[in-house]
Amino acid sequence: MTTTPFPSPSARPLLKLRRVGIDSYRENVAFLARTCIRHRPEEFQALGKVEIAHDGRLILAVLNIVDDARILADDELGLAEQAFAQLGLPEGSPVGIAQAARPASLEAVRGKILGRGFEPSEIEAIVRDIAGHRYSKMEIAAFLIASARFLTTEEVLGLTRAMAAVGTRLEWAEPVIADKHSIGGIPGDRSSMVVVPIVAAHGLPIPKTSSRAITSPAGTADTMEVLARVDLGVAEMRAVVERERGCLVWGGHVNLSPADDVLISVERPLGIDTREQMVASILSKKLAAGSTHLLIDIPLGPTAKVRNRNEAIALRKLFEYIGDQVGLAIDVAVTDGTQPIGRGIGPVLEARDVMAVLRGDANAPDALRRKALLLAGRIIEFDPALRGGRGAARAQELLETGQALAAMERIIDAQGRAAGNHRLGDLTYEASAPADGIVEAMDCYRLARIARLAGAPMDKGAGIDLFCKLGDRVRAGQPLYRIHACVPADFRFATDLAGEDSGYRITAA
Amino acid sequence: MTTTPFPSPSARPLLKLRRVGIDSYRENVAFLARTCIRHRPEEFQALGKVEIAHDGRLILAVLNIVDDARILADDELGLAEQAFAQLGLPEGSPVGIAQAARPASLEAVRGKILGRGFEPSEIEAIVRDIAGHRYSKMEIAAFLIASARFLTTEEVLGLTRAMAAVGTRLEWAEPVIADKHSIGGIPGDRSSMVVVPIVAAHGLPIPKTSSRAITSPAGTADTMEVLARVDLGVAEMRAVVERERGCLVWGGHVNLSPADDVLISVERPLGIDTREQMVASILSKKLAAGSTHLLIDIPLGPTAKVRNRNEAIALRKLFEYIGDQVGLAIDVAVTDGTQPIGRGIGPVLEARDVMAVLRGDANAPDALRRKALLLAGRIIEFDPALRGGRGAARAQELLETGQALAAMERIIDAQGRAAGNHRLGDLTYEASAPADGIVEAMDCYRLARIARLAGAPMDKGAGIDLFCKLGDRVRAGQPLYRIHACVPADFRFATDLAGEDSGYRITAA
Repeated sequence: MTTTPFPSPSARPLLKLRRVGIDSYRENVAFLARTCIRHRPEEFQALGKVEIAHDGRLILAVLNIVDDARILADDELGLAEQAFAQLGLPEGSPVGIAQAARPASLEAVRGKILGRGFEPSEIEAIVRDIAGHRYSKMEIAAFLIASARFLTTEEVLGLTRAMAAVGTRLEWAEPVIADKHSIGGIPGDRSSMVVVPIVAAHGLPIPKTSSRAITSPAGTADTMEVLARVDLGVAEMRAVVERERGCLVWGGHVNLSPADDVLISVERPLGIDTREQMVASILSKKLAAGSTHLLIDIPLGPTAKVRNRNEAIALRKLFEYIGDQVGLAIDVAVTDGTQPIGRGIGPVLEARDVMAVLRGDANAPDALRRKALLLAGRIIEFDPALRGGRGAARAQELLETGQALAAMERIIDAQGRAAGNHRLGDLTYEASAPADGIVEAMDCYRLARIARLAGAPMDKGAGIDLFCKLGDRVRAGQPLYRIHACVPADFRFATDLAGEDSGYRITAA
Repeated sequence: MTTTPFPSPSARPLLKLRRVGIDSYRENVAFLARTCIRHRPEEFQALGKVEIAHDGRLILAVLNIVDDARILADDELGLAEQAFAQLGLPEGSPVGIAQAARPASLEAVRGKILGRGFEPSEIEAIVRDIAGHRYSKMEIAAFLIASARFLTTEEVLGLTRAMAAVGTRLEWAEPVIADKHSIGGIPGDRSSMVVVPIVAAHGLPIPKTSSRAITSPAGTADTMEVLARVDLGVAEMRAVVERERGCLVWGGHVNLSPADDVLISVERPLGIDTREQMVASILSKKLAAGSTHLLIDIPLGPTAKVRNRNEAIALRKLFEYIGDQVGLAIDVAVTDGTQPIGRGIGPVLEARDVMAVLRGDANAPDALRRKALLLAGRIIEFDPALRGGRGAARAQELLETGQALAAMERIIDAQGRAAGNHRLGDLTYEASAPADGIVEAMDCYRLARIARLAGAPMDKGAGIDLFCKLGDRVRAGQPLYRIHACVPADFRFATDLAGEDSGYRITAA
């Protein structure tokens, strides 16, 4: 039958691996020269993905074509930073490239598009493939959009479990590991930085990881960084918690839910934020962090993320149900989200508020103090050794006696006290009341935008210092808040926006 | 109220434009150095898109971060090829970069995700933004998936009109401009290359643009390229059609439906191919090409794209309805898609079949001859000057008298006769019948894959030469087909696949 003998397998053509110094943001990208000696790269490109293999290692990547010999030569295969790290071979290694087979789990995504449900095993396979960077961003978007129309409670559960399973999993040798999480949306809400030292002072371990701001003027990690180092790895974080019972670190080095990190890199630019995906995202991270007891804070208000009580209740129930199924004890607090909690918006200003509350300063923002006490009290209630109902009083005692402040100072020292002295931006502008009246509404979204334009969180000293809150009586010309900025251009953008509309609504008394 | 004077607008920081020799495949990509002197690029990246502006020009792009000073310096802003061309400024131009506002039309996509319909004006805005490269691939995927669940007939109509409106629009000074389009899926079906010269010989203008193969072993453009130049621009194509009444060119230089080209760059890797998107894609291109009368070929068979008659009918009706609404006279032919049409699969072999039919060779593949005559006859019926029902006879007459062959030779000369003599690959392998019997089924999909692995269409002489078709009686050991390849590695892959399963099913007689 055969008219010509088979050639040997070594005839398979290979290219030389080269690292290309481009960060393609959570997507594997490979490069071939348009004049590549081995392949016609346009064909690969039209079909989307290639696989790069050597010695049993294999990664999938999206292909870009290079027209510049300084970036890539004809006999090279380039990989952007993330893909290069994932393949884990030295530059110059001989590598083969071929059209990639579509990940098998995409069939389940196609089924979902057509209206079918996911089996738990299908969700596991999808999440494994996403965490392994085998989905392109287009394919992740397809999964998210197909899921956004409906995701049953069982599917949310499957997604939570699958996402927790693929990352680092922290184990703690203690029966209760407390945690708190706010779904966010309210500027100037740094309750965590008061809650953690109170709970740690009580003796309950609370290893808190936080995010940096992406769309907001400050994340807890940005604010804590005014006081201490926050980019700790897992071992360092563990050491701090073992000694001080609590920490306030950035979650970026901890790799708790790599699939979620990839999903978020698509959700955020698409602006998709469904209740189901939010719950799976938060709870998978907490599971992976080894938390056993979790307080969820849902701020409710007309310009907050959750804007009516029914929405808050539906969200609370979903948290509770999934928590019960995965063995996380969950308490949900629906809190006041009608206005910023502290006085400052922006890292330096928010850190100032936190320390004022911990020190018990007379002029410390009362709303921040009260909210932190409420949340800390409920977390302390998780302690089985405590008599039921004693949490709130215990929290207050720890704050008032300065034990919380001492715990905070120890946590700061353990993480590494910040060397630089961050100063408030010295370009300032005061927005003032146009007429006599009462502060009837504050637009959290607008105030956050103004603070962000002023330079927060990149400039830690930029932001807004609020002088009036809801219900305050003001006179015409009385300052409502002061903008701080460090750079003239930012200052101008922020004051322009504040000039259009201050974000305050004042009505005649 | 103001405590500090506003800075001047010139304080807005600018970067130097640099062209980065990377082809990012129908997506605008911008680059900033991680150590950029003006911005914190990570912030931009997390939110997905940036806008780059100078002097009233503005483009949107996805941002990648560069860690290599040879690719990009600290004070530069890089643009990949497509984005650089779109912005249209010289290197070194001062450009500003900012977080991009989300295209307003994405709100309609979000509505569709939640189950609402599109207004025609919303579809127009979406298509304009897609053609203007203001959607990232993720956003395009969101639009496609949200639409894949359901798209009403009116939405298909809106999409067709909107896509036709954004590209080049060809105008012809003739009352009838004929065209044909096959939805594809059958290997070795080069009917167009026989139909076009027959119709042109009749005198009806038929300016045919075709694609190159992406997933198949040969597109009409790849096969025509064995005989003539196919990469003509609009003006050249017009000149050929004015002189010879027909052409067979590659559509890639004609830019008829730029939105569709972008959509396809996402549909193809995602493997989404809904009936609605296919109809809008095909008809928008034909509208933009200035066609007035169109024959659509729907091959029907168990391994073709359309696999049952109801599907074919639903598709036919959608073509007819949209055609009626946009003023395109449409005739739909549902044809035999149970097996390859010609004998050859691959550019050189298919060109051989086409020329054999045109020359009237005794051993020319009869199925190709009959199918081309059927389709050409129906297109000739579009001619108002012809007596009804005369189309088939006229087509046959033009073929048998050699007038079609002469038209083809003139078209080849007008486009530019191919210089090189493409030869058949000389690595050959014959797949043979395992036992006596009758050819009961041929797997079009598998045969196409074998031909593709053998090197088609990149190696024009690679492919499969079929010796037996459906219903043929064969004896054990009798050759079914011969594989041709040019490169040993490809040859091995193709013969391996054919060895596993030849794609033929032989049953005892």
